[in-house]
Amino acid sequence: DLIADLAAGFETGRLAGLRVLVTAGPTREAIDPVRYVSNRSSGRMGYAVAAAAREAGARVTLVSGPVALDGPPGIERVMVETAEEMRAAVRAQLPGCDIFIGAAAVADYRPAQAAAQKLKKRDANLSLDLVRNPDILAEVAQGEPRPFTVGFAAETGDLDANARTKRMQKSLDLIAANLVGPGLGFDAEDNALTLYWEGGSESLPRQSKPQLARELIAIVAQRFHDASSD
Amino acid sequence: DLIADLAAGFETGRLAGLRVLVTAGPTREAIDPVRYVSNRSSGRMGYAVAAAAREAGARVTLVSGPVALDGPPGIERVMVETAEEMRAAVRAQLPGCDIFIGAAAVADYRPAQAAAQKLKKRDANLSLDLVRNPDILAEVAQGEPRPFTVGFAAETGDLDANARTKRMQKSLDLIAANLVGPGLGFDAEDNALTLYWEGGSESLPRQSKPQLARELIAIVAQRFHDASSD
Repeated sequence: DLIADLAAGFETGRLAGLRVLVTAGPTREAIDPVRYVSNRSSGRMGYAVAAAAREAGARVTLVSGPVALDGPPGIERVMVETAEEMRAAVRAQLPGCDIFIGAAAVADYRPAQAAAQKLKKRDANLSLDLVRNPDILAEVAQGEPRPFTVGFAAETGDLDANARTKRMQKSLDLIAANLVGPGLGFDAEDNALTLYWEGGSESLPRQSKPQLARELIAIVAQRFHDASSD
Repeated sequence: DLIADLAAGFETGRLAGLRVLVTAGPTREAIDPVRYVSNRSSGRMGYAVAAAAREAGARVTLVSGPVALDGPPGIERVMVETAEEMRAAVRAQLPGCDIFIGAAAVADYRPAQAAAQKLKKRDANLSLDLVRNPDILAEVAQGEPRPFTVGFAAETGDLDANARTKRMQKSLDLIAANLVGPGLGFDAEDNALTLYWEGGSESLPRQSKPQLARELIAIVAQRFHDASSD
């Protein structure tokens, strides 16, 4: 019926006319031509968020680290490997972006020097010198002009305090925090999220990542429109 | 015709009645609950070798690190994550094994301590202490009783000298060596191998990993039967 159609149109059109940039997956930081440092991100949450934003009517670009996932239909995907490459791809896509959602698990550190040849194993012990990677999310949130900026926090404990601190430190509009552990979060099918923004929070219970992403996008759209009308 | 059928039967039956144990894929060594050190092995070569050994009539067990591949049909697969887990799985499978083919890219080093909680990024620089992992291939080759033992060497340079040295140091019956670089070896569809054994060598040209694995298995079967009849 007409009312339902109108409601559905409203639902799916919440981000119509907007450009959304999403990052997803891990980054890989080379130790030498074969070895690397990385993390357990499967990319599923970020890909689901990109798909949900598309469903909500946005024009979506997905900047993705190495994952075993196909690109969601209707989305422009840019594949990268390292944090430096992800930063460059994000900078190139930022102009005209309304909402940035940093779901990638960017490696915090990279080897200080990537060896050009495969390292030979000589010693019983080895010390690997690491240096900080750029904080892409904070750079976007503290840049000018800045999109509405959403980040993720994967924590193994003290979720509430760690997430609130991270949101403030990075100047994010909203942070989606989850506990990682057996069967939850990284490399898992299901996830649960607690969202924090200035003056509010909401817990989304454990569910499939596609469904969770739709609920997240609904709240992001609401916060975005509230912020725009201030 | 009959001759062709007999020839085909001979071809596919070269390892009939034998038990072959294959390792494949990378290992992942935890830095903390989300971060790890690993390498670019896709597991494709080891999986192709396991499938080729099965085709040649062997009973095959595949001990596999984390990869995005399905188990080949007719093969028992044991999934592991770390080098220590791979070593334990190999030890459990070794009794009664005639041929061991170590195609896994086992991480040479692991973090000295895996943190129970996710590390917080505080410092601009970080030093990661690594310790040597067990050398599963050398342990198998130097154990008693020992199977016919085949190893792989992925090198970025000086292939011939590095492969011959590795074969001698580890007491391998045969080593399959390849250069890794853009489009070859790790994480690639094609590969080329040079095989070295006591008193001989043979180069297998660049081709698909399944086809290359069949040629490797044919030579392994020949060397195994020659060694058994000495």
